[in-house]
Amino acid sequence: MAPIPTSREGYHFKADTIHEGLYTEAAIESTKSPKPFYDVIVIGSGFTGLTAARDLSTAGKSVLLIEARDRIGGRTWATRSRGHYMEMGGTWVYWTQPHVWSELKRYGLDRELKQTTGTSGDLEVLQFKSRGSDPLKEYSFDGPGGYNVIMETAIYKFLDVDGAGGTKILARPYDRDFVRNIPLKFMKLTCKDRLDQLPELPQEHKDLIASMFETIGCASIDKTPFFEILRWFGLSGFTFRGWLASVDELSLKRGTTSLALAIMDESRADIVLSSPVASVIRSRTEPLTTITTRTGKVFRTTKVICTLPVNCLGDVSFDPPISPLKLAAAREQHLTKIVKVHTYTSEKLVPTFVSSLSPSKIPFGYTESDVHDSKEGGGTFSVFFGSESELDRCTPLATFRELKKILPSEFNNEKRNPKFNPKEMFWHDWTNDEFAKGAWCTFPMGWQENYLDALREDEQGGSCIFANADWADGWRGFIDGAFEMGRSSAWRVLKEERNANRASKL
Amino acid sequence: MAPIPTSREGYHFKADTIHEGLYTEAAIESTKSPKPFYDVIVIGSGFTGLTAARDLSTAGKSVLLIEARDRIGGRTWATRSRGHYMEMGGTWVYWTQPHVWSELKRYGLDRELKQTTGTSGDLEVLQFKSRGSDPLKEYSFDGPGGYNVIMETAIYKFLDVDGAGGTKILARPYDRDFVRNIPLKFMKLTCKDRLDQLPELPQEHKDLIASMFETIGCASIDKTPFFEILRWFGLSGFTFRGWLASVDELSLKRGTTSLALAIMDESRADIVLSSPVASVIRSRTEPLTTITTRTGKVFRTTKVICTLPVNCLGDVSFDPPISPLKLAAAREQHLTKIVKVHTYTSEKLVPTFVSSLSPSKIPFGYTESDVHDSKEGGGTFSVFFGSESELDRCTPLATFRELKKILPSEFNNEKRNPKFNPKEMFWHDWTNDEFAKGAWCTFPMGWQENYLDALREDEQGGSCIFANADWADGWRGFIDGAFEMGRSSAWRVLKEERNANRASKL
Repeated sequence: MAPIPTSREGYHFKADTIHEGLYTEAAIESTKSPKPFYDVIVIGSGFTGLTAARDLSTAGKSVLLIEARDRIGGRTWATRSRGHYMEMGGTWVYWTQPHVWSELKRYGLDRELKQTTGTSGDLEVLQFKSRGSDPLKEYSFDGPGGYNVIMETAIYKFLDVDGAGGTKILARPYDRDFVRNIPLKFMKLTCKDRLDQLPELPQEHKDLIASMFETIGCASIDKTPFFEILRWFGLSGFTFRGWLASVDELSLKRGTTSLALAIMDESRADIVLSSPVASVIRSRTEPLTTITTRTGKVFRTTKVICTLPVNCLGDVSFDPPISPLKLAAAREQHLTKIVKVHTYTSEKLVPTFVSSLSPSKIPFGYTESDVHDSKEGGGTFSVFFGSESELDRCTPLATFRELKKILPSEFNNEKRNPKFNPKEMFWHDWTNDEFAKGAWCTFPMGWQENYLDALREDEQGGSCIFANADWADGWRGFIDGAFEMGRSSAWRVLKEERNANRASKL
Repeated sequence: MAPIPTSREGYHFKADTIHEGLYTEAAIESTKSPKPFYDVIVIGSGFTGLTAARDLSTAGKSVLLIEARDRIGGRTWATRSRGHYMEMGGTWVYWTQPHVWSELKRYGLDRELKQTTGTSGDLEVLQFKSRGSDPLKEYSFDGPGGYNVIMETAIYKFLDVDGAGGTKILARPYDRDFVRNIPLKFMKLTCKDRLDQLPELPQEHKDLIASMFETIGCASIDKTPFFEILRWFGLSGFTFRGWLASVDELSLKRGTTSLALAIMDESRADIVLSSPVASVIRSRTEPLTTITTRTGKVFRTTKVICTLPVNCLGDVSFDPPISPLKLAAAREQHLTKIVKVHTYTSEKLVPTFVSSLSPSKIPFGYTESDVHDSKEGGGTFSVFFGSESELDRCTPLATFRELKKILPSEFNNEKRNPKFNPKEMFWHDWTNDEFAKGAWCTFPMGWQENYLDALREDEQGGSCIFANADWADGWRGFIDGAFEMGRSSAWRVLKEERNANRASKL
């Protein structure tokens, strides 16, 4: 019998015990006998790396994926319990996300999607706390004075720095040249600055949109750039409704890992897992790069695609060294530092979404899925995001103890879920994860204008491409951004080769 | 010197003369010596065929494209005048169109886009006639009572058959299984039926949205299915604003032909042009298909991807024959039967969009682009759609004479463009085009439930895949739908082969 695929990552609390490591189909086998030389070596097997490796290997290149973890998927992987797939990281897909959507179509997975109970049309009310200690306040969704109308109107005003709801200054969010020419004054605004420019907007409405912005970066509004919010809304068509659907509604029935496995199934690339890269050394005399792992494995290639996340760019030794601006960004670290927690309650919960303003130990949480099979015990799975700065995260046990203490109050509400009390918990501490050091990338103030161009630059004389969702043109920090970067880096390599072949024929 | 690439298609009126044929970079050369046998033969070199051929040929298959016309691009091609590229057919792209957007990114063309003056933020007013003979009525866009608020509110009510603005019944517009289970009563509604269900909606608002719906199919609201409108809005995020941006705002600076040429540049497929296919005959005894062109060329293959549009499915002889339902659809013909006309005026026009209710000789028109270079004569290019049923189209000359007579009244408005008088005209009569027999596909009543599944079915024992934007899951009749179909048909062929190879190794 095949062994049950398990990663050492993540934690599971059940029956008063914490278990390290979780079931995941992403824990695949390494290639038995990797070769000493490959046409292209891809560092990292998140969606960026998986896609680049697939597109290059199916076009005839020999490709090796080198992965630090014992599983594929990077910041996106799923575990399973009671037949329910839980996303430990990246989750959401939608047809406003062009790159991942066309990949779902490629594998027929656009027909294998599910809606989340706490963020979709099933939801009857939004629950909101201005401060973590406030009692839950409820909003109905539809009708005058409902949450949707408040949000749509308030967000339009918030984005409306150009008399057109932001659609003029960000008419082409994917266009680097266009974005680079947006006046700097818009980059210098924090969300708080922008809210302060709107004295006529009721404080209640400001709190509601601020709370939504704080879920975007899991950082407070005085640290979150206005431009990050404008980008997210622009990418989803500049409406609250479009944005909410894009980032909070559809996910894969069998988990994002089913997409990663579909890519690996098509790919002809080799892979070595559990092999963090120590150094990438480019020869001064010949077109050859030597990559050495911390475990002492050595591989050689002419071309490298490095898919390390921004927060980890300082953790590999590059010779020649990479741009000081890349390293400065890695030292500063992006904003989104969280623990992602799934809970299982044996009671069936009313569909719920709770959001609270910072400082908050739990910026947001929602019910995700009911267990419909009574043989599986019924009940409901929910998701919470724990804040790095507010939670005690000195050890997994400390984090767990604090979560265990505060989570019961999160959904507690006499009318709705009076006895919310998680029976099991599954979590991934992304901030303490040495190969991510954070979750999805939200840029701090100043990064857009100071670091973005540098993050995108090739290194080592053009032989090393840097590709990661953290600096995508479109859905930065999203699954979609990973596909954008993976595919476009592979296309670049193939196009360079075509051009070189044509030139050599002249 | 290379000859100026010219197609025999389209007409140009200038200095009192009509010239047949137009400049286009889409008029490329055929492969010098095509082979008698290919792994895959793709019939038609619209975007569906171009993409399928590229994806199969770069994966190592030998592929032949057989094209009836003297140019590539199918219902999408561009000509040029005064440095301005004019789209004679399909035009629009946006990041809510996932398949074409990821293709634009592939070739860096997402940074080569332009906005249209008459449909973008530059537009100050919308001009509207309830009937073709009415005087133009003007609406400002923003503010209370403005066009945007009227449209957003009225369209929400129109789509709101489910208490959620249509988002529940069409929660997953791309999902065939989901769509197939939508209650039949929604398929049985025409747009007019649905408007009649809304007695509280002011007639003026009904006229405005009806006029917009009639631009969608260029057919009257009693012939246009409610479900077609719901689909278009669902694909763009269920808002008027999202929809308008998706279908009416961004196009390629150097024309859609620049995208077609980028694909051909990457493709390794052979191509023969000016070769309409006469017959596709599958052997009863061996896995071999023989394709014969009207010009007598014969090619053989094991696998065919047929990209004929629905209106032309009856024009090729298939043996074994294809499904009677495919042929029935071809006999009935889809709704959108138009002439697309570009005008050049030496006066610079105020950005304008004009829409009128059917019966109308010109369902809609808009200014497209000013000529900024005074050496090119200044002035403005505009676009009009002429109705098949209302215009005299017995000969190109008759069509032209009627257009010449009625167009001056279209933009005439004392306040804005008092002397609109086209100096040059460029047009393509899509309805009289034997290889299209219509423009973008809008389904008539009954097609969604009666023909759609049959249109998608393989024929000739699975050896012949039918792929065309006309029956895409998503943007039916759009450029995006063509990429969806081209890519997914290539992936299917490659996946079947992988599976067969694996099975043979067991």
